Amino acid sequence: MAEPSASPLAAALDSVGDRWSLLVVEALLDGPRRFGDLQEGVPGIAPNVLSGRLRRLESEGVIVSEPYLERPPRYVYELTAAGRELADALRLLSDWGARHREGGDTPRHEVCGTPVEMRRWCPTCAQPVGDDELTDLHFA
Amino acid sequence: MAEPSASPLAAALDSVGDRWSLLVVEALLDGPRRFGDLQEGVPGIAPNVLSGRLRRLESEGVIVSEPYLERPPRYVYELTAAGRELADALRLLSDWGARHREGGDTPRHEVCGTPVEMRRWCPTCAQPVGDDELTDLHFA
Repeated sequence: MAEPSASPLAAALDSVGDRWSLLVVEALLDGPRRFGDLQEGVPGIAPNVLSGRLRRLESEGVIVSEPYLERPPRYVYELTAAGRELADALRLLSDWGARHREGGDTPRHEVCGTPVEMRRWCPTCAQPVGDDELTDLHFA
Repeated sequence: MAEPSASPLAAALDSVGDRWSLLVVEALLDGPRRFGDLQEGVPGIAPNVLSGRLRRLESEGVIVSEPYLERPPRYVYELTAAGRELADALRLLSDWGARHREGGDTPRHEVCGTPVEMRRWCPTCAQPVGDDELTDLHFA
């Protein structure tokens, strides 16, 4: 975590790029969760590891916590808008894991059997968008 | 790495889900690379860490190595088909990193200014594919 962020990918991985953090984000994609829900939703995570990852994800602006009980203090955790934007990347990694680690197959279009791809899509124009049809990206 | 693979995402992360492994995969997306190229392409990676990640990625079927020199033994590293399938997920993580860690903006469609989304796409039918239009997925 001490390395400089050499690229946007490195920057993303510095925020959320460890196994447990990404699994916690995945468990929160379906809505807010309490600590105990997350322990069940992320099998094998130790309570101290979960606490640490939640603190880090909150400091990175990926989740927020809201108290739901004062004594003892208890919190519910929820993705921010930035956190929810990780959904597509996690779905692709999950698809990849299903295909390559569990003997599964590529997802295919039901009517023609063609393996599906991912494309950028403009919901206003209802058409795919090529890399050369984007406004100037990031990188000030 | 010792935890059981509870979900497809966990399975994917067990294979490639650490910062250095994903940065090495990203550096190989543009084509085969030698060890020294990878050291330059992944700023901050230590030689022993790079060796370890390359061995692991090869054992996971994500890369292959080919000798290009016998004495001393030297190898060139290349993504397998499975490794190249990580490209979309890495691009999304990279976009996310650019937006949230470097003060950048969301990529938008140039002609209308709408933030673009990612959709599954059938290249044969030339149309987007919904989750309910896929053949039965993975999970034997």
